[in-house]
Formats: sequence, C-alpha cells, structure tokens
Amino acid sequence: MELLIINGPNLNMLGKRNPEVYGDQDFDSFFKELSEELDEMKLEAFQSNHEGEIVEKLQLSKADGIILNAGGFTHTSVAIADAIEAIEAPVIEVHISNPAAREPFRHTSLIAPHVEGSIAGFGLESYWIAIVAFQGIIDEA
Amino acid sequence: MELLIINGPNLNMLGKRNPEVYGDQDFDSFFKELSEELDEMKLEAFQSNHEGEIVEKLQLSKADGIILNAGGFTHTSVAIADAIEAIEAPVIEVHISNPAAREPFRHTSLIAPHVEGSIAGFGLESYWIAIVAFQGIIDEA
Amino acid sequence: MELLIINGPNLNMLGKRNPEVYGDQDFDSFFKELSEELDEMKLEAFQSNHEGEIVEKLQLSKADGIILNAGGFTHTSVAIADAIEAIEAPVIEVHISNPAAREPFRHTSLIAPHVEGSIAGFGLESYWIAIVAFQGIIDEA
Amino acid sequence: MELLIINGPNLNMLGKRNPEVYGDQDFDSFFKELSEELDEMKLEAFQSNHEGEIVEKLQLSKADGIILNAGGFTHTSVAIADAIEAIEAPVIEVHISNPAAREPFRHTSLIAPHVEGSIAGFGLESYWIAIVAFQGIIDEA
Amino acid sequence: MELLIINGPNLNMLGKRNPEVYGDQDFDSFFKELSEELDEMKLEAFQSNHEGEIVEKLQLSKADGIILNAGGFTHTSVAIADAIEAIEAPVIEVHISNPAAREPFRHTSLIAPHVEGSIAGFGLESYWIAIVAFQGIIDEA
Amino acid sequence: MELLIINGPNLNMLGKRNPEVYGDQDFDSFFKELSEELDEMKLEAFQSNHEGEIVEKLQLSKADGIILNAGGFTHTSVAIADAIEAIEAPVIEVHISNPAAREPFRHTSLIAPHVEGSIAGFGLESYWIAIVAFQGIIDEA
Amino acid sequence: MELLIINGPNLNMLGKRNPEVYGDQDFDSFFKELSEELDEMKLEAFQSNHEGEIVEKLQLSKADGIILNAGGFTHTSVAIADAIEAIEAPVIEVHISNPAAREPFRHTSLIAPHVEGSIAGFGLESYWIAIVAFQGIIDEA
Amino acid sequence: MELLIINGPNLNMLGKRNPEVYGDQDFDSFFKELSEELDEMKLEAFQSNHEGEIVEKLQLSKADGIILNAGGFTHTSVAIADAIEAIEAPVIEVHISNPAAREPFRHTSLIAPHVEGSIAGFGLESYWIAIVAFQGIIDEA
Amino acid sequence: MELLIINGPNLNMLGKRNPEVYGDQDFDSFFKELSEELDEMKLEAFQSNHEGEIVEKLQLSKADGIILNAGGFTHTSVAIADAIEAIEAPVIEVHISNPAAREPFRHTSLIAPHVEGSIAGFGLESYWIAIVAFQGIIDEA
Amino acid sequence: MELLIINGPNLNMLGKRNPEVYGDQDFDSFFKELSEELDEMKLEAFQSNHEGEIVEKLQLSKADGIILNAGGFTHTSVAIADAIEAIEAPVIEVHISNPAAREPFRHTSLIAPHVEGSIAGFGLESYWIAIVAFQGIIDEA
Amino acid sequence: MELLIINGPNLNMLGKRNPEVYGDQDFDSFFKELSEELDEMKLEAFQSNHEGEIVEKLQLSKADGIILNAGGFTHTSVAIADAIEAIEAPVIEVHISNPAAREPFRHTSLIAPHVEGSIAGFGLESYWIAIVAFQGIIDEA
Amino acid sequence: MELLIINGPNLNMLGKRNPEVYGDQDFDSFFKELSEELDEMKLEAFQSNHEGEIVEKLQLSKADGIILNAGGFTHTSVAIADAIEAIEAPVIEVHISNPAAREPFRHTSLIAPHVEGSIAGFGLESYWIAIVAFQGIIDEA
Repeated sequence: MELLIINGPNLNMLGKRNPEVYGDQDFDSFFKELSEELDEMKLEAFQSNHEGEIVEKLQLSKADGIILNAGGFTHTSVAIADAIEAIEAPVIEVHISNPAAREPFRHTSLIAPHVEGSIAGFGLESYWIAIVAFQGIIDEA
Repeated sequence: MELLIINGPNLNMLGKRNPEVYGDQDFDSFFKELSEELDEMKLEAFQSNHEGEIVEKLQLSKADGIILNAGGFTHTSVAIADAIEAIEAPVIEVHISNPAAREPFRHTSLIAPHVEGSIAGFGLESYWIAIVAFQGIIDEA
Repeated sequence: MELLIINGPNLNMLGKRNPEVYGDQDFDSFFKELSEELDEMKLEAFQSNHEGEIVEKLQLSKADGIILNAGGFTHTSVAIADAIEAIEAPVIEVHISNPAAREPFRHTSLIAPHVEGSIAGFGLESYWIAIVAFQGIIDEA
Repeated sequence: MELLIINGPNLNMLGKRNPEVYGDQDFDSFFKELSEELDEMKLEAFQSNHEGEIVEKLQLSKADGIILNAGGFTHTSVAIADAIEAIEAPVIEVHISNPAAREPFRHTSLIAPHVEGSIAGFGLESYWIAIVAFQGIIDEA
Repeated sequence: MELLIINGPNLNMLGKRNPEVYGDQDFDSFFKELSEELDEMKLEAFQSNHEGEIVEKLQLSKADGIILNAGGFTHTSVAIADAIEAIEAPVIEVHISNPAAREPFRHTSLIAPHVEGSIAGFGLESYWIAIVAFQGIIDEA
Repeated sequence: MELLIINGPNLNMLGKRNPEVYGDQDFDSFFKELSEELDEMKLEAFQSNHEGEIVEKLQLSKADGIILNAGGFTHTSVAIADAIEAIEAPVIEVHISNPAAREPFRHTSLIAPHVEGSIAGFGLESYWIAIVAFQGIIDEA
Repeated sequence: MELLIINGPNLNMLGKRNPEVYGDQDFDSFFKELSEELDEMKLEAFQSNHEGEIVEKLQLSKADGIILNAGGFTHTSVAIADAIEAIEAPVIEVHISNPAAREPFRHTSLIAPHVEGSIAGFGLESYWIAIVAFQGIIDEA
Repeated sequence: MELLIINGPNLNMLGKRNPEVYGDQDFDSFFKELSEELDEMKLEAFQSNHEGEIVEKLQLSKADGIILNAGGFTHTSVAIADAIEAIEAPVIEVHISNPAAREPFRHTSLIAPHVEGSIAGFGLESYWIAIVAFQGIIDEA
Repeated sequence: MELLIINGPNLNMLGKRNPEVYGDQDFDSFFKELSEELDEMKLEAFQSNHEGEIVEKLQLSKADGIILNAGGFTHTSVAIADAIEAIEAPVIEVHISNPAAREPFRHTSLIAPHVEGSIAGFGLESYWIAIVAFQGIIDEA
Repeated sequence: MELLIINGPNLNMLGKRNPEVYGDQDFDSFFKELSEELDEMKLEAFQSNHEGEIVEKLQLSKADGIILNAGGFTHTSVAIADAIEAIEAPVIEVHISNPAAREPFRHTSLIAPHVEGSIAGFGLESYWIAIVAFQGIIDEA
Repeated sequence: MELLIINGPNLNMLGKRNPEVYGDQDFDSFFKELSEELDEMKLEAFQSNHEGEIVEKLQLSKADGIILNAGGFTHTSVAIADAIEAIEAPVIEVHISNPAAREPFRHTSLIAPHVEGSIAGFGLESYWIAIVAFQGIIDEA
Repeated sequence: MELLIINGPNLNMLGKRNPEVYGDQDFDSFFKELSEELDEMKLEAFQSNHEGEIVEKLQLSKADGIILNAGGFTHTSVAIADAIEAIEAPVIEVHISNPAAREPFRHTSLIAPHVEGSIAGFGLESYWIAIVAFQGIIDEA
C-alpha cells in the first residue's frame, strides 16, 4: 500500500507556529518516526504553500490513498475540491487542531463534501489515525 | 482502558435505515466483533433516542474516554454540548456517513467545538478508528 | 387499515391552551367521535411531550400509515425527521392551526421534506382529512 | 355547494411535464372523473398562466370556496396573496407535489398566510382532499 | 405563596461544571439555605435533563409562580416555549451567567417572549432575586 | 397639464378590501370628486391587475406625469421598474397605507429607486398630494 | 393650524453640501419664502444635529402637526422613533432626496413605521407637499 | 431548422431605453437584418410584456430551439422557469447587457438552471451568437 | 450604599407614553416612593435623552452601583456600551417591558455583554428588583 | 486576429474528470480540431492550475482577445478579476457546464462583472462560440 | 498648516479604560508632547461624547485637515459620515487599537467610505502617523 | 533597520492599471525615490502574483518589519493570514486606494486581524507612512 500525505500552506512551520495550537514537533521528525514504525507501507510526504502545486500533486499521484491537510486552503480553494473530485484515489481530510473550536471561517470546509472521510483535532496523531483508516478502507475494497 | 460508545437517535435502526447511506450491518453485531477483537479493553455501548438520557450518560460515565455519535442531536442539542463541556472525560465525535456531503443543516455540529477530535465518513469503521485515536490520546496522557 | 395518530408536545393541552388558536375541544373527545364514525378502521392515538418517545413510536409502529402532528418539534427535531426517513410506513404531517400565519420560526418544518404530504389549518378536522388522504394513498397502493 | 378550482401556470401541462414529479394524468380527465363522482356538487375548474387573470378570477368568483394551486406564482405573487385577503370566500392552497422536498425557493409560500388551510404532496388526490376539507368547513359554518 | 423552581439540563452539575462561569456552590445546598431563609413560603425545586419532563412539570404545576432556568433548552426548545404559553401561572426566566456575554447562540432565547420577566447574570442570587420579583407580582395581583 | 394615474392589482377592490387598512371609499367615486375639483387639469385613471398591461400603459402614455400605485407589484416587479426607467415622463410612487408599518416584504420597493419621489400613508389623499407635487415639478421645469 | 418643521443633522448645510443631491438653496431662505406664502398658518422651523434635542423637541411640541426630516438619524435612531410613538401629534416624514436611490443603508427608516405618512424625493418642495398633506389630515379630523 | 426568439418586458423599447446600456438599434430592424443574412433558417421573433404570454409561447412553440431574453422576468419568474423545464425544445438564455455588472438583483437568474446554455453581454450580437450556438447543438443531436 | 439610576430617552414620558406597555405611573412619583421606603440607602435618579450625557454620567459617577435603563439606546449605542466597560462600578441593565416580546430590533442589546446582570419585564418593579440585586452583589464583595 | 484561450485549474483533466458533466473529449484534441478549422486565425491555448500564472498570462498577453475559463478560480479569485480589469484586451468568460445548475457556490462569478460577455453550458462548443463572438466584437471595433 | 484632532466618546478615558487595549497614557499628556515636538504646526484637540458636537465641530472647523477618532460612533453614526461628506477639509480616520481584531460590530466603519485614508492599530502613535500623512497630502496639493 | 515591502497581485501593473484609482506612477520608480530618501535604512521590495510565493516570502524574511499590500489576496487568502500569524516580525497592512469606498467584497480583510496596524487610502504615500509607523514601533521596542 502506497500512501501520499499532502500538507498545505504554513504546515512547513509546524513546531514553530503557534505551539499552543499545533504542538511543538515539526512535521519532518514526526514523519520520520511514522515511516520507521510503518515500514511495510510506502509513505510519501509533500508540502506546498502553492494551491496549484497541490492541485497538480493530487492529479498526478499514483498512491492508493491520499491524506490531505489543506491548511488555510481548506476554507478557500474550489480548485483543490475540484481536483479531489476529478481523481480516483480516495482522499482523507485531516486537521491537527479542531477547526470547529476556532474562528468561524474555519468552520466551513470546501473540501469535505468530496473526501472519503475527515479526521480532526488529534494533533500530529491525526495523520497516524488517517493511515489506520486507510488500512480499513483498502482492506475492504 | 475503559471506553464508552454513545449512540444517539435512530442509530438503533442501523442496517435497516437508508442502507445506501449507513451500510447494512446493525450496530450490535458490529459491536460484538469489535469487543472480541479488542478483548484487552473494556468497551460499553449505549444507545438512546432521548436527548436527556445521553446528557445523563455523559454526566455519570466513569469511562476513560467517550465515543459519541449524537446522530440528529449533533445539529440541535445545546444540552449535549454543555454536558460534554461539563465533564472531564475526553469525548470523540464520530459519524458513520460524511455530514458535509449531505443536507446543509448537517454541516453544523453544535458538539464539535467541545470535543477532543472528530472522525466522520468511514462507515462503522469510524468507531474503530476512534478507539485507535483514544489509544493515542491515553498513551500520551 | 390501521392508522396511528402521533401528537407531539403540548397537544395534551388542547381545549385548554390558546382556544382562539387551537379551538376548545380536547383531543380525547375528538378522537372518540372519530373512532366511532370510522369503526371499520383501526385507529390508535399516541401523545408524548418527549422527542425520544415519538422517535421510538415511529420506529416501532406496525400501522399502515402514520398521522403526525409534531407540535413544537416540527421546527426543531432532526431526530424525528430522521426517524420518518428510516421507516417504511407513509407519514402525513398535520397541523391544527396554519403555521404560515404565525411566528416566523413556525414557517420552517424539518419534517416536511420526508413526509408523504402535509395538511394544515383545518382545526381538529385536519386529522380527519388526513385519514381521508390515507384512504386515497392506500387504495392506490 | 359550489367550489371553484383555480390552477396556475404550467398546470395545463400536467401529464406532459415532469411525470416523475407530477404524475402522468392530465387535469381535464381527472376533473371529469371528479365531477362525475361528486355530482351533487357544483365544481368549476379554471386554469391560467396569467397572474392577473387569477387575481381577477378570485375577485369575481361567487363560489362558496376556492381551491387554489397557484403553481410557480405561489412563491412570487404578492398580488394573488392580496387578492385572497381581499375576498370573503375561503381559499384552500393545494400542491400536487411536496414543495418542502424540492428546491429551496419552493419552501416559501407568499399565499399560505392568507388561506384557510394547505394540502400538499398527494398528487392529483390533493384536489379531492381539499374538496373533502371544504365539506367540513362549510358544514361547520 | 407556593413557588416552583425548574432547572434544565446540566444544572445538576452546578458546582462541578465550569466553576469560573457558574460558581462553585451546588444547587441543593443553595436551595436548602434559600428554603430556610424563606420559611413562610412554600418552595419546590425540580431538575431535569429531559425536555419532555420540563414541559410536563410546567403543565402540571399548581404553583403560584414558576422560576425557570431552562439551561441549554433556552435556545432550542419550542416545546417549552409553547408550554409556558399554554399555562396560566406566571413564569420568570433566570440565568446564572450572563448569556449575552457568551457564545452567539446563547444570545437568543426562544422562551423569553412568553415569560413575565427575565433575570440573568447574578450567579445563584438570580433565583433569590426572582423570588423577590414574584413577591412584587403577586402582591400586585 | 395631463396626468395619468395607474393603479395596480386589487386596487379595484378599494372600499371593499380591508376597510380598516384602505378606507371605505372606492376609487371611482374618489376619482370623480378629484376630477371635478381639478377641472383645469386633464386626469386619466387606469387600473389593471396585469403586470404586462401596466408596463405597456407606462410605455405608451403621453401624459406629462404619471402617478403609480403599483400595489403588490411594488415589491415583485422588475419589469415595471425597468419600464419606469425606460420612459421619459416623471413617475411618482404613491401608497394608500404606510407599507413600512406592515409586513416586512412590503418594506422593499423595487420601483422606488426609479421614481421622481414617493408619497405613502395618507389614504386616498395620497393621490391628491401627488397631483400637488406634480404641479411643483412641472412649474419648475 | 400650527406646524413644526424639525430638521436633523447636516440639514443646516443645505445649499452647501452635495448640491447635486440636495440642491443649492439653503433652508432658511426657503423657509422664509414658505412662511410668507402661507401667512395664515403658524410655521416654526427647528434644526439640530443632536439626537437628544430632536427627541425633546418632539416631546415638548404643541404644534398640530410635525414635519420631520431626521437626516442621518432616520436610519439609526430608535430614540426618535420611540419619541414619535410617545406623542400625540401626527408626524410626517420628509426627505429632500430619494433615499431608495442611494446607498443601501439609506433604504431602511426606523422612523417610518410610526409616522402618519412619508414624502421623499421632491427636493425642498417635499416640505411644501407635507404642509399640503397636513391640511388634508387636519381638515379631515 | 426553425428557431424562435422570445423577448420579455421592455425589449420593445430597445433603441429608445437607456441607449448607453442597450445600444441604439431597435429589435425589429436588427431582426430584419438577421433574417436576411440567415435566409436558409426559419426565424420567428415574439415579444411580450406579459409573463403569461411568454409561458404560453414556450408551451406551444414547435421550434427546434428557443432563444429567450426574459428581461426583468429573468430575476422574478418561477412560472417561466417551470415552463422551460416542462417543454422539450432546448432554450438558450441571452442578455444584451452583462447582468453581472449591474444591480445585485440582476445577478440571480431563476431561469438559468433550466436552460441549455447562457450568453450575455454582447449587445444585439448576443442573439446572433445564440443562433450559432444552436447550430452546434442541433448538428450534434 | 449609594446607587445611581440612569434612565435613557423617552423615559421622562413614563405614565404618558403607551400606558398599555409601560404602565401609567410616572417615574418621579415612583422614585419618591422608592426613596422613602429605602431610606437607609442613598439613591440618585438621572434621566437624559442625550447619549453623550449618559456616557458622561457613567464616567463621572461615584456610586457603588448603577442601574441603567438605556431605553432606545440599548439597541444602538456602542458609546454607552464602551463607557460601561471603561468604568469600575458594576452596572445592572433594567427594562420596564420585556424587549424579547416586542419588535425584532429590540431583541439585541449592545449593552448586555458588559453588564453585571439584566432584569426585564417587571414594570417599574424592575428598578426595585435591581436594587435588591445590588444588595446581594455588594454584600458579597 | 490573435486569440488566447486561458484554461484554469483541472481543465487539464477534461475527458477524464466527471465525463457526465464535462464530456469525454480532452482539450488538446478539441483545440487541434479548432485550430485546423480556423486556420486564418492565430489561436493560442494556455492552461494553468496556478492562479498567479493566469494573472500573469493575462497581464502579458498581446492577443486581440482572451477567452477565459477560470474553472474553480471563477468563484474565488479577486486577483484574476483585478487582472482582467487592469488590461485592455477584451475578455470573454466561458464555462463548459452550466454553473447555474450546479452547487450554490458556483452561482457567483467574481470575474463576470469585468468581462465583455459570458458564454456557459455548451460543452466544448462554448469555446468555439466565444471565438464567433470575438469575430463580432472585433469586426465592430 | 492647521490640523484639528477630534476624539469621540470615551477617549477622555484613555489611560484609565482597558489599558491592555488602549495603553496607559492619557490623551492630554500625549497631545502636549506632540504639540511641543511639532511646534511649527498649529494643532487643536477636541473631545466629545456627543455625536451632535462632533458633527458641528466638523462643520465649523477651519483647519486644513482633520484627524478623527470617532470611537464607538465609527460603527453607528450616519450623521458624522454625512458631515464628513458635506465638508471640504480632508479627514483621516484613526484608531488606537486594531478594530479588525476585536468584536465583529467593530469591523464595519460607516465613516471609512468618506475619508481620505485610514490608520489603525498603532496606539497613540496612530495620531502622529496621521499628522505625517497630512504633511504628504498637503504638500501634494 | 531592515524593512521588506511585499506587493501582491497586479501591483506590478501600477501606473498602467486604473490610473484614476491607483495613480500613474509605477512602483519601481516610486521605490527608487523612497530608497534614496531613506538611505540610512535597508529597504527591500518584492512583488508576486502568486499566493504561495507571498506565504514563503513572509516565512523566510529576516527583516525587522514587513509592509504588506496583499492586493486582491487581502480578501481571499487564509494562507497569507496564517503566515502572518506564524511569524514573529511585525506586519503593517497597506492599501493604495481606500477599500471601504469600493466594492463590498473589498470591505473585508482576512489579513487585518493579524497585523500590527493598517494604513489605507493615501496613494503610494501609504508605503512611506508605513515606514514612518515602523520607525515608531521599532523605537518603542
């Protein structure tokens, strides 16, 4: 099973930005741990602050499943929502924090109607939970 | 680790109601499988169509964590939201279907701002994923 | 033909509450007259002020058709709307008064999208008209 | 008892337009059956695609009661609503389909606040039910 | 003079839930003090997490006045609002905290249009002030 | 000076419809009095319940000024608003009652942005005041 | 007949402010002409940029009728609206320009529901038309 | 190929009304040019200021395609939208000006969801472009 | 204990304005009775129809507590709300009538988020209840 | 005549994405056909999933006209709308599907107020129709 | 160059009110420093809690430029906005705090559309920056 | 002191785009003048039409302060707002024109809640004023 993790804008700042909201671990060290633990699985991580690059990564991915934390684009990007709808691979939406407990504009996800499922609020564990969820989805298929 | 699963209104109809949305397995048989698989854990399941009973189950529970699928009350119950805020045990919100892909009134969760995290759209697997999530949360604590 | 009439909150106050809106006959005496007049039909009447009891009465009913006056729950209960959607028996929504001529919050029915049809504004006659309507529906089926 | 049925725009297309929504019987054949069945009653049917003609039919009618299916004018015509308010004959609003289960703009009826009562969702039977309802209203008066 | 205090959902958690918002005294000990101080008056206290039980307590009460803290139901229950309208005893709405200073959904009370008066923001003293208010009302009558 | 008075839907019911709102004089007798009193002026009155006829009367009129009481079309007719904008003769909007003191949908006039001025709330005197206003406008021009 | 004209904020700038909207005559010279022309009538003019002074002028006036151009307070002052409701003298609302053809916030008048009638869009003639209207009202009374 | 052009209210004023918005050519001379240029095609033009006549023209037309400029009815007529849905001939919506660049109420078309396609903003050329579009549609069918 | 009562616009009309809403006693006679009854307390009453004077009275007051009935300013004055926030003395908001049962614009209080507590609907008794409330607050402090 | 076609995000997926909405031809093969058919014209096609690249293509283009299908950016990009306004070349907005018949967020185009005209709903033919439209525009200029 | 600084309601409380929002310096001492530093310039400072006084100060000022911190009136005063529009002197809007980071009702400025420019969020420095800005404006003129 | 100026989309068109709104000087020549005048300061200017590049420039900047004119992204980019929140350097928002005097969608800034302060409406002088403001901020720190 190959999984692709796509991280949107400012997620390269993890560990540096608002540690009380997002925790103090950076994504790369977390991803390294994750990859070692799940060595029977092929994991790729991709981060971009560019909406267009995320659209294209979604279009071109050959992964069996995609874990997408679209960051601020969650609330503003019809283009990413359309890309999810246009591809066949299942996408799971993840969030580190709980958007429902933050500013009102974070309560609406343009992406959510097109994903397989959503996972939010578990810190970096959200990614790990999404991988577990994919194991279920792919076992079933 | 003791976990309590609370199911809200009409979830006793699982397997009978809208199988194209909710699947065709009933909750009891699913729960039996789950309990057998996770025998090192103490799992309790509770279903009620009564808002007040859910409020009270939340208030009285001694579990280490609560998995709550509040069904239709998700969108209408300030009382359940207040109960979650009033107790100490962490609560994870789960949904079998993906509310963001359904009617607009299902896009707002009164409960979400008070939970630890949310998991939606994975069918009955959503409960299993929530248990996995709780393992992470409780390990960390 | 068996029909079940479900009355929601405060309909046990009929004849006592706002007679200028709801008339001055109580439901029991009306129901007695109705049952005598329609003696070839099996009629049951059920009233509850509890949302959960109405959900469960809907789930468990074996009637050929259900006449539902959900009272105040008409405008607030996703749980009852979901229960109607979850069962097979056809449901007709009735109202004694004309909600469209009252406060704005009474202009929206969460239940209406899931019912067979709606009848409103004819006083207690609304129930009798609904029975007539069911005769048409069941004849046709 | 004399009753007038007024049908608004596009109801002359019944049986031809969207049969999955409106059924496949045209109004004239239905009305013929209805008139034969209810031969002790004087029934008149009037259809117009012109808002002004409906306003005037309402103003000039000498019927004991009026059954109005205003079609698309239900949601847009203050003039028809004002005409109902201006006359003395009681008016019952009917709909063949269930507007609450269709597009949002069909959820608001400008006419509803001024009618005796409303009946919706029973196909062409809605007219027959309205006649039954008028029998009750006129018996009472 | 007999007065009935009705407390809605989660008010049985007083003293335990959010002490910074609701204070740290539980209702029972407060009520005991109150009853002793006002021994010439007959006071009854009733708490329920069930909307339907509150509706019924309102319907059946024989008290001269009712003090209602509907908790979360304040913002969601048409059924309780209708029950207040249906009975004759005057009702005073009380709140321990000041809802206008909290989340926006707490700024709207469905109950307020039907009560004699409202008192909010004085902690548990709100109940005592309501009793004082009832003395004025009943003296006047 | 030639003036044209255009009356919209249901204004042919004046004196019969809601006398507590619109008074009990019919328009024809009022118009006769008006014409006699203002015999040096050429006055024409036109009433229609048809939006299209009002559009066309506006387009074809040769009057120096037009007094328009569009009735219910005031709040719904872009076509009449466009017709006013398309012609050169000045138009004054009049209302017998005070729409701002009635239902909310009467608080918006689609016509108002295109008229010379508006006069509302003076009963049938509103027409007479509009004629006075036109005398001012035309004197000035 | 004694009439009082009350002008609100910035109307002392007439003739200086936005002449393309309000014309280039100042109010004092217009009022002088008006008073000379209508010498059988007692006219008083009062201008204030202070909401409180307008409230008090309304409360204390002994005039038979009041012509009020509340300027910017039209859209923001509940206090002036309440004062109109509190007094017995009839009030006519006037506007020099046509608020419906200007910014959206000028389309709502808090004052309009409480006045006898409204006159807008006729330049300074609006005042003269209002006096004519008062003659009708007072003749009738 | 037979095509029918339907023009709604005030389009008989073309060339006279707001030339800076709609240009200075009248429709008849434009239509004459168009017909001569496209002499292998059967073109009919119909204009009405009456909503009901447009509904009926749509219902009765035998054309292969209909080009509809509904003018002001675009934003207010459910009846015309329903008529388009009720017939089989494809309809193309055209506008001379660009409604998106005008008043907000012109930004919503009730008709658009039911048409084959929309063309706006090209002056009278919009009609000619629609004919070209129909050639493509009909070639394809 | 020194308390200051501030009354906003039109409260000088008490007893004269809408007696069915506000009762028929004027404030001065009520205040005299109140002062005599509570002679151990220093009470001051201040009324103004000027927003600025109320702002300044709040800023300059040396009282231990302030009872504020801001009248129409309740719904429109950010300046008064800011003044309450800027001072240290606790403020209680009172209303004679029940604003929640009146026009929609009276359902929002700009002041409420900044006060100690609110009391509404008890007629002139609302002031007396507020004094009682202050005794509780000050005893506690 | 040189024309530039700009396609926004996901239009590189044409023929692959939602064929029931967008058809099954890819853009490149369509463009090849188009170019061959219109060999007297210079056509360029540009696709980008990057908002910034579309902004810059618009800024730098030397074409006589631009045909823009902004895809998902239609509803979210002020930057593209501003770029259209900033350049001199006329822009025609095209859509393959009919956005008015899809999700509500597709009913608003930020771009529409700044374009020459709009063409929507004709499948890939929309581009060809836009070229025809440009021939008209450029002939006229 | 003569500049006038106008401060609105509660700005006389600077240094005393919410020091964490507005800082702890009072305006007078700040103004004294400012005047000394800019001794080649004529600076006047005016504060009022009265909307009408600010309107009049604006109307009567002879300054070359006006710096206006309207405080709470920023969000509620059409009268002040109209006064700015009525005068010729350029006005710069300043705010000590950043209104966009505070309550939603502070996000809308009625004044902003009529000013030369806006400066917000720099504490008392905002005034000094505004003076600098005026130097630029006046140099240019 | 090092300052970075970031200009968003279409600001490379300054001097060419809408000169009546943005003036006729291009940014480069203005920046050259500015740099020469402020030679004791290190100024860098960066322009991009790509949201992602602006996010990254913010993340990577080592400047003591950042002046950001986000152009059209001001109203649509959560990603840029999040980047501002994620970094430590203070950011000042500038606008050349006064957005509050333009289209409604320009009245909301997603960026404003996270900046130090805002400056709008002074043409290219806005940048120079922002530099002055930074001198104050940095002096103070």
